[in-house]
Amino acid sequence: MTTATLSKEDLSGLHPREIRALVRERKWTRTTQDLAGGYAQANLAILPREAAFDFLLFCVRNPKPCPIVEVTDPGSPIVKRVAKDADLRTDLPGYSVYERGKLTAEVEDITDYWRDDLVGFLIGCSFSFETALLNANVNFKHHEGEKPSCVYVTDVPCVPAGRFFGPLAVSMRSIRQDQVVRAVQVTSRFPATHGAPVHIGDPSAIGIDDLDNVSFGTGRVEVQPDEVPVFWACGVTPQAVALASKVEFMITHKSGHLFVTDTLSEEIAAF
Amino acid sequence: MTTATLSKEDLSGLHPREIRALVRERKWTRTTQDLAGGYAQANLAILPREAAFDFLLFCVRNPKPCPIVEVTDPGSPIVKRVAKDADLRTDLPGYSVYERGKLTAEVEDITDYWRDDLVGFLIGCSFSFETALLNANVNFKHHEGEKPSCVYVTDVPCVPAGRFFGPLAVSMRSIRQDQVVRAVQVTSRFPATHGAPVHIGDPSAIGIDDLDNVSFGTGRVEVQPDEVPVFWACGVTPQAVALASKVEFMITHKSGHLFVTDTLSEEIAAF
Repeated sequence: MTTATLSKEDLSGLHPREIRALVRERKWTRTTQDLAGGYAQANLAILPREAAFDFLLFCVRNPKPCPIVEVTDPGSPIVKRVAKDADLRTDLPGYSVYERGKLTAEVEDITDYWRDDLVGFLIGCSFSFETALLNANVNFKHHEGEKPSCVYVTDVPCVPAGRFFGPLAVSMRSIRQDQVVRAVQVTSRFPATHGAPVHIGDPSAIGIDDLDNVSFGTGRVEVQPDEVPVFWACGVTPQAVALASKVEFMITHKSGHLFVTDTLSEEIAAF
Repeated sequence: MTTATLSKEDLSGLHPREIRALVRERKWTRTTQDLAGGYAQANLAILPREAAFDFLLFCVRNPKPCPIVEVTDPGSPIVKRVAKDADLRTDLPGYSVYERGKLTAEVEDITDYWRDDLVGFLIGCSFSFETALLNANVNFKHHEGEKPSCVYVTDVPCVPAGRFFGPLAVSMRSIRQDQVVRAVQVTSRFPATHGAPVHIGDPSAIGIDDLDNVSFGTGRVEVQPDEVPVFWACGVTPQAVALASKVEFMITHKSGHLFVTDTLSEEIAAF
């Protein structure tokens, strides 16, 4: 079914609308990282209506890991505000389907899985503020061959809401000491994409004993002597919390395969 | 039952905790305006659980008129985050009880009205950003005998959510031309209390034909030749929308009789 033969270069300069059209036709089924520069991308979580109040409340109570970009009307897969004519069933390049907390399918289209009681949550993603950091010359990608960030589960509890509770997950970027203040300033402007850091410095203060021991994926960021580890709340948090609750049914974007909005990050910046 | 013999001066300098204790003992049953300077106050809306998802979604979709300060767990009247040991049934100096959109009681205590399915919503109030404006010497209270602000219903629709829809209500303050930019800057820092203005200048652009014709209460603000009317989203909006939906049961604070939190406005400022 996959007919994707395009390269990332072919998509450079395309408007999000054009990228979503290619995704919808399954001509692009790879990650959305580095696509549609300047436009906000969003994590996806789809949950049944009966779990939606608790989940929405969890997001409202934990705005740093779970900044809400848009929530669809129950039963509707249509995005109305942050993108035009977008359909959550077809417009992401990959999906993960979970039943009672277990992954049961990875698919490129969820039309067959859609139900009348589902609610779609779009949650801000750090791609946006990474661009802002790089635009401000705060470079966290300077070590050849390393991942720009690593994700850890902390010992900081989120504020619970109903069945949803669990620890905060964070992403770490290694920032040069003389740029840490600027990094706080730049990311503070983007509350819709996790905003300011949650912690600067000593990882053990938030329950991370070993920076080499990442909680998700592999990869490693080496903190140099003139650098400080800086931690931002991570969009993995709401997904992890929802899965841990063993919610009956849930669909998420496949890792790295996000929803590309028509909204510039600057349009939803604090000011 | 009312034994209130205290004056506003008696309460000056008291911590919010002490003010709430006086309220709980019904020793203070008057408005909370000008009390607990620097601390955030909040509008109250209590709704049944079955309406709570739609209402929370309405607030999330309309953050300027409906900035969420805290939402209680369904069935619980206890505030956990913005105040310590506070009970929504007793800790506001006055309440309005509505059934199917009609006012059925005004009371000083809602213990007898509490139900296991009720959810309390605390929504930011403009008292906080008014203090910030005054602290920055942006004076909108300079006309003797006039109200500092007036409330109007605009023709700007809120983003609907389920049964909840309706127009945006705004408060207007008359600001000296050379202070309008500063007024935008100062209030932008307080998204939890309605944030930046929604409109500057020509009232007819947002459907207000006559500034003398206020939508709530009486009062009047005369805009002087060197002044500009500046409009902020108003916390009347969610209440008006909920009442218009004729929701089965709803309790709100009595006008001006707000919930006083332990949280300084600066603690929830954007940055």
